[in-house]
Amino acid sequence: MNFTKRDLPKKSENLSDWYNKVILSAELVDHGPAKGTMIYRPYGFAIWELIQKELDRLIKEKGISNAYFPLFIPESLIKKEESHIKGFSPELAVVTIGGGEALEEKLVIRPTSETIIYEAYSRWIHSWRDLPLMINQWANVVRWEKRAYPFLRTTEFLWQEGHTAHGNHEESSALVLWAIKMYAQVYQELLALPGYLGRKSESEKFAGADLTLTYECLMPEGKVLQNGTSHDLGQNFSKTFDIKFQDQENKTDYVWQTSWGLSTRSIGGLIMTHGDDQGLILPPRLAPIQIIILPVKLEEKILGACRIIKESLERAGTRVKIDELETVTLGSKINTWELRGVPLRIEIGSKEVENKTVTMARRDTGEKLNFPIDQLVEKVSELLNQIQTNLYDRAEKFLQDNTKEVYTYDEFKKIMLGERGFVSAFWCESEQCEKMIKEETKASTRCLLLDAQEQQGLCIYCQKPAQHQWLFGQAY
Amino acid sequence: MNFTKRDLPKKSENLSDWYNKVILSAELVDHGPAKGTMIYRPYGFAIWELIQKELDRLIKEKGISNAYFPLFIPESLIKKEESHIKGFSPELAVVTIGGGEALEEKLVIRPTSETIIYEAYSRWIHSWRDLPLMINQWANVVRWEKRAYPFLRTTEFLWQEGHTAHGNHEESSALVLWAIKMYAQVYQELLALPGYLGRKSESEKFAGADLTLTYECLMPEGKVLQNGTSHDLGQNFSKTFDIKFQDQENKTDYVWQTSWGLSTRSIGGLIMTHGDDQGLILPPRLAPIQIIILPVKLEEKILGACRIIKESLERAGTRVKIDELETVTLGSKINTWELRGVPLRIEIGSKEVENKTVTMARRDTGEKLNFPIDQLVEKVSELLNQIQTNLYDRAEKFLQDNTKEVYTYDEFKKIMLGERGFVSAFWCESEQCEKMIKEETKASTRCLLLDAQEQQGLCIYCQKPAQHQWLFGQAY
Repeated sequence: MNFTKRDLPKKSENLSDWYNKVILSAELVDHGPAKGTMIYRPYGFAIWELIQKELDRLIKEKGISNAYFPLFIPESLIKKEESHIKGFSPELAVVTIGGGEALEEKLVIRPTSETIIYEAYSRWIHSWRDLPLMINQWANVVRWEKRAYPFLRTTEFLWQEGHTAHGNHEESSALVLWAIKMYAQVYQELLALPGYLGRKSESEKFAGADLTLTYECLMPEGKVLQNGTSHDLGQNFSKTFDIKFQDQENKTDYVWQTSWGLSTRSIGGLIMTHGDDQGLILPPRLAPIQIIILPVKLEEKILGACRIIKESLERAGTRVKIDELETVTLGSKINTWELRGVPLRIEIGSKEVENKTVTMARRDTGEKLNFPIDQLVEKVSELLNQIQTNLYDRAEKFLQDNTKEVYTYDEFKKIMLGERGFVSAFWCESEQCEKMIKEETKASTRCLLLDAQEQQGLCIYCQKPAQHQWLFGQAY
Repeated sequence: MNFTKRDLPKKSENLSDWYNKVILSAELVDHGPAKGTMIYRPYGFAIWELIQKELDRLIKEKGISNAYFPLFIPESLIKKEESHIKGFSPELAVVTIGGGEALEEKLVIRPTSETIIYEAYSRWIHSWRDLPLMINQWANVVRWEKRAYPFLRTTEFLWQEGHTAHGNHEESSALVLWAIKMYAQVYQELLALPGYLGRKSESEKFAGADLTLTYECLMPEGKVLQNGTSHDLGQNFSKTFDIKFQDQENKTDYVWQTSWGLSTRSIGGLIMTHGDDQGLILPPRLAPIQIIILPVKLEEKILGACRIIKESLERAGTRVKIDELETVTLGSKINTWELRGVPLRIEIGSKEVENKTVTMARRDTGEKLNFPIDQLVEKVSELLNQIQTNLYDRAEKFLQDNTKEVYTYDEFKKIMLGERGFVSAFWCESEQCEKMIKEETKASTRCLLLDAQEQQGLCIYCQKPAQHQWLFGQAY
């Protein structure tokens, strides 16, 4: 593998150009042959596997089981829930030929699985004893995209989707909140991505939901990335799909449902937020390689020391690799592993071997450290934690610095036509104002913070009374 | 959940009827709404997750990385390798509409991913330094089926597919063998399924391969299940897809490739082989619940004892559950967990609590045991191992008893029209004889054992000289 940073534009000067080039040259992804599709290369997929592992653990800990439902949804089934199909129909990929013959009924490739899962739930749920029914699925989904953007917007992407059914609204409500809080935790602790947790407006909520909770992050160019949503479906789907149960008093009622999903889109946010002009910077908890060891010379004495270091770091549970390639210079190796965002670099030369020390460089700050080898494991663990925290803190500061309360529409427009970011502003909650603001500034309502207080204010657009300050931003 | 065994036919009398009913009533699967599709319910999917976990570990241990390639293969790409598309074209599902518009080029849903992966390999491989390139993918694939059979033959199924590229044939050959031996190990040690490991005939090998190795198991009705294959692709695909590399002497050559896959079909073989008239029997290593604890009465003293037993078994690393349902009788619970194939059942009543003993029943033999509670962990571990071994040994005996060497075609026909099974017979390796045998007896060549000796014999069909005894059988 031969990396080059020559062609990498400065992140601060052209984020999307930098992004498109860094993900290719760091071998995270490649373009697929069909328009809008993407290949997750091993280095990129390994990040997703680490996210999966933690999410899967949290989901199972909650008593939710994995299952797998078909990719194909008969057209008549997906059309059953009116607002749902209205939301998704422009994005569908449709199979019309199977086994060489035109199909009698077209098959839609799942854009999400509510309809196919709830058709089954209607057959599986009869009594309160069958509740709660809580299932999660890891799957590929397809939403047709005219303009693809790797990770953020691709025709096919990978995700998990949770689907639960409950005997009352109190319980399903609590589950909706649990899911979005779990996502927020994963974003904050693993991806080092701070964000806002709140509810969507009526026009921005999921097609078929009563309420959508969301976690929204701010990217360096001031645009907002929606990073996982959790939906209170109320009894909308259960009424359409006839999912009824008998309660303990033998009364029949429709179940209360939730659905929630987190996708590979999250990796896009991670890359944009933490990277710099040298390439990726991966948070240690999600870095497929946490420590790269570079022998300064390929001498047996030095290589031997590298191997001992590798072993002791592996025993301590870290992901570590030695780059022993013969035909590549040390400088080029440093560039490569900086480009690939490995959090810590260890360099071992004759001096280190003689003095029994280790030289280490932090990817996030560039800081170089030298310390006795007997402190190795302890120092590495400390540094990995520090890097994880530092990345979060940097992003948190950026988020705070770029969230502004505004009280006039002029100010609002000035920000949205300039550096962008989150704007907190009173809004009367009419769809008309929301639509006009979006047309004029490209900013949509992102969410109303969960803990937002009711206040007295005037809508930033129409000046009529408004009760809440909503967060606005330009979405991807 | 309320199970019933009333409607379960006897396995020995009607295997396919028993099979179709047991997988539904044990809640392993359900039918999907689109023809030929299947839902993996949590209990069925948990078996797949256990298979995945072990396979994934073995694959990564070999230095092979996971990645993910697109679902959609442009029609022109899949048509590139002639024999490959010839083999797969009758089974393809095709997307012709995307985002509401007819597509310029049709998109085939992957039936397997050689073409889409190797298109990428041609861009990623340049030099000997890029080799071996070894990637695995966990994915859903689609092969159109007119007559579906859950697990064994469904339009969509789940699998892993490995794809490696090497600098010489010696190395790729070794990888082909490694993969099939890994599969055999997983079948034998986890699924408790003995089988034959051998190579496919020319007509039965994978479309596009030089050589296909296979692991073939015998089902109770005497039919053969192909359970995982590994292909030596030679330079067929690398020549079609122009995957070239420069070796250390700066000479250019095409890479040598392998592909190999194991699917959810394996679960079908597991169910058919080990189940009995009472329902499933799951091998302990793949049982989502290894031990079910049934309180004889729902009294606090008894439930307390059950919980202590559960905790100590969980600490010992086993998967265990207490059935505390109030509205179901003990007899009905026993039926349910027998139907679901849980390897060990513990019953705790007042007597057990008083005497500090545990009563346990083996699902495979029905044997009941009673022993002091302080032997619990040790006994359970011993019994789970015994059950695993016993299931394998039973299946191995059946395989041996139903593998017959025959030397006349009359005998061959008699067996294939009767109890079936594997037949070992000389075959001249002409496609004509193979085709006639299949037409007249429904038996195809299954494989030539890897360690088969060259011998002198006469083809069972045409009586011309033949060098090897091949295994024949009726496949699913």
